[in-house]
Amino acid sequence: MKILVVGGDGYLGWPQAMYLSRRGHDVTVLDNLAHRRWDLECGTDSLVPIADLRVRAQAWLEISGKTIDLRLGDVTDFAMVEQTVSALKPDAIVHFGEQPSAPYSMIDRAHAVYTQLNNITGTLNLLYAIKEHRPDCHLVKLGTMGEYGTPNIDIEEGFIEISHNGRRDRLPFPKQPGSFYHLSKVHDSHNILFACRTWGLRSTDLNQGIVYGVETDEAALDARLATRFDYDAIWGTVLNRFCVQALVGGRLTVYGRGGQTRGFINIRDTMRCIELALLNPPRAGEYRVFNQFTEQFSVAALAAMVQRAAGKKGINVEIAHRENPRVEAQSHYYNARHAKLVDLGLEPHRLTEAFVESILARIEPLRPRVNPAILEPLVRWGATRNRAGYLHAKDKASIAADERFSAGAPSGAAPLHADGRVR
Amino acid sequence: MKILVVGGDGYLGWPQAMYLSRRGHDVTVLDNLAHRRWDLECGTDSLVPIADLRVRAQAWLEISGKTIDLRLGDVTDFAMVEQTVSALKPDAIVHFGEQPSAPYSMIDRAHAVYTQLNNITGTLNLLYAIKEHRPDCHLVKLGTMGEYGTPNIDIEEGFIEISHNGRRDRLPFPKQPGSFYHLSKVHDSHNILFACRTWGLRSTDLNQGIVYGVETDEAALDARLATRFDYDAIWGTVLNRFCVQALVGGRLTVYGRGGQTRGFINIRDTMRCIELALLNPPRAGEYRVFNQFTEQFSVAALAAMVQRAAGKKGINVEIAHRENPRVEAQSHYYNARHAKLVDLGLEPHRLTEAFVESILARIEPLRPRVNPAILEPLVRWGATRNRAGYLHAKDKASIAADERFSAGAPSGAAPLHADGRVR
Repeated sequence: MKILVVGGDGYLGWPQAMYLSRRGHDVTVLDNLAHRRWDLECGTDSLVPIADLRVRAQAWLEISGKTIDLRLGDVTDFAMVEQTVSALKPDAIVHFGEQPSAPYSMIDRAHAVYTQLNNITGTLNLLYAIKEHRPDCHLVKLGTMGEYGTPNIDIEEGFIEISHNGRRDRLPFPKQPGSFYHLSKVHDSHNILFACRTWGLRSTDLNQGIVYGVETDEAALDARLATRFDYDAIWGTVLNRFCVQALVGGRLTVYGRGGQTRGFINIRDTMRCIELALLNPPRAGEYRVFNQFTEQFSVAALAAMVQRAAGKKGINVEIAHRENPRVEAQSHYYNARHAKLVDLGLEPHRLTEAFVESILARIEPLRPRVNPAILEPLVRWGATRNRAGYLHAKDKASIAADERFSAGAPSGAAPLHADGRVR
Repeated sequence: MKILVVGGDGYLGWPQAMYLSRRGHDVTVLDNLAHRRWDLECGTDSLVPIADLRVRAQAWLEISGKTIDLRLGDVTDFAMVEQTVSALKPDAIVHFGEQPSAPYSMIDRAHAVYTQLNNITGTLNLLYAIKEHRPDCHLVKLGTMGEYGTPNIDIEEGFIEISHNGRRDRLPFPKQPGSFYHLSKVHDSHNILFACRTWGLRSTDLNQGIVYGVETDEAALDARLATRFDYDAIWGTVLNRFCVQALVGGRLTVYGRGGQTRGFINIRDTMRCIELALLNPPRAGEYRVFNQFTEQFSVAALAAMVQRAAGKKGINVEIAHRENPRVEAQSHYYNARHAKLVDLGLEPHRLTEAFVESILARIEPLRPRVNPAILEPLVRWGATRNRAGYLHAKDKASIAADERFSAGAPSGAAPLHADGRVR
């Protein structure tokens, strides 16, 4: 299968590209290297060192004997998207290429507008390019479980049968997203559903849970093939943050009461889910939604699990509560269906204490790379001008260089100030 | 009450500004004159001649003794929005300032992306400016009944009580919009709901039906105060088009079977509905939705009504069916609730044969101004590169001049070609 992986330099995109390449697919990666630029802006970095995209692809060729083609470009540039899709004529496009952070979208107005415009434009451009140049192409789009919010009823997979005043219909599941980022994914979902219905396109919208884990079979083959491990308050996930907090101070900070419950999935299961979606495409005109997670946990339960796993390694960990920077329900009903991928053959990995121990073992040697400052949640949902840059004076030169090629960023976004912070 | 009317040069915005000014409110109009530019682009024009915005405001001062302040600016420009809201500190903002046409949004990719980016950015900018400079301000936002599509259940006002697997919740009504324009309104609705919930803002989202009528008490006072009457295939509504078709050829063209059923409202009721929303604001943090229409009709029923009204004037009218350029259900269940505005005191005008006769009488003297070419629906939903410009060679000079100040338009949108058409 000829597959275009948009955002193929990212945490999931890169291992997914290798996973599909190894299984004999003809893979092209398209990326604008945005996450590397955002790291420079925010002063963040992957704890696991990652190689440049060209080095990654070269290493993959050396080790696997297989070629992953690279295209550097931004999906908000339609001329490039059109040229890529018409030249490649992919059977499927896996679209990871969006701004993926809720806190980043909540920094200020410029970041909110940038997130929505960037994500919406990229997806619209892909839809138009597919319609015009490869209408049979299967668009596999990464959404998020966060599109649903936390309703007081069971969450279905994209659609719900509603009985009302004696009549029935199957309608899109109501969405209550919790940030301008999550909203951008809701907007995408509505746009894609419309394109499928109106133009006969085919798409799978994967409402993914929080992904954990850093190793895949391919990423483990060579240090140059490793993928990201983000633990900071903007790009990191709660489990990664807890693991790093256990290592560097033994104090896990739970935001609010910790009753926030979410769906989780192992990175190896993400790889397999996307393969399953690709191997079982929807019919022309079909827009389908899979809830791509395998288990649900509350934040408090995760903290307790990390505490126990650290304890087995002789690390004494304390759980502390602090004010929640987000505006969200801190104790709520949560029960989301996730049967469709299992029906297609997914055999889920489980999140266990033993798995958390393996994460701790993987990152322990990287402890000197931890920057404790970036664990601090500086983006508050209730504020509209968060000072979320973590830049130090020594970073200024590299940022200034970066700004020169940041044509894709919103004009006026994140100007640099004398103190080296991003306003 | 101090009220900012965004889009106050438009079909509804201008009469609404006068309506509120006459009732003693302190009204400021903000507009970027976009509709006048779009008319130049599309070769369209209001059948009723309209005065320039400055002339309108000057005439209003002469006739009513009241001042409507004018600000020319684009709500996608945050510096301007912020300056306006912080200087004015309005009690309410009535937001008509969006690209309002489904066919315009479906011309091609550039117009789809422009519509969504323009509408989303303007609304986000208003939300941020309100949050930062006037958090008590009531945002009255114009949405559309088209956000709901045509579900097989009764349409509620914004939210629906859902019972599912033994649990209940009140959730946003599922949305199934039918164009990239309608989608932009759905995106706005989700963004506004989030801002109310997260920041404690207050907003009324008016899901308006198709507005008909050209006269209000204020617009009728002087020819310079008149508002638009659009009858073309891009900006016009179906009733206006039928009335013009009755006058110029006696042949009403129904797209498809004509079973498409929609909500309708008289322009005088729109004026009153917005006044009722303003006089009865939501509480802080509340996002409420009113379905702003008074009656529902199928397209076939409207055609029959125009036929009968024309018959009374001695005009013999034929009803013809032609291929539907839109992708939409042509025969469907439709029953939408619209009780909240009536509960607040709305006394609806009815759409009757007599009212259609009054429209025919109003536009009959304007028959020489009709351009039959622009009745033709050139935008097909199934195509992605519609040639929807109606420009004639004589218009080229004015367009070229217009293009020079069209900073707000998408780059690369609607380039002009040798044949004078817009690709």
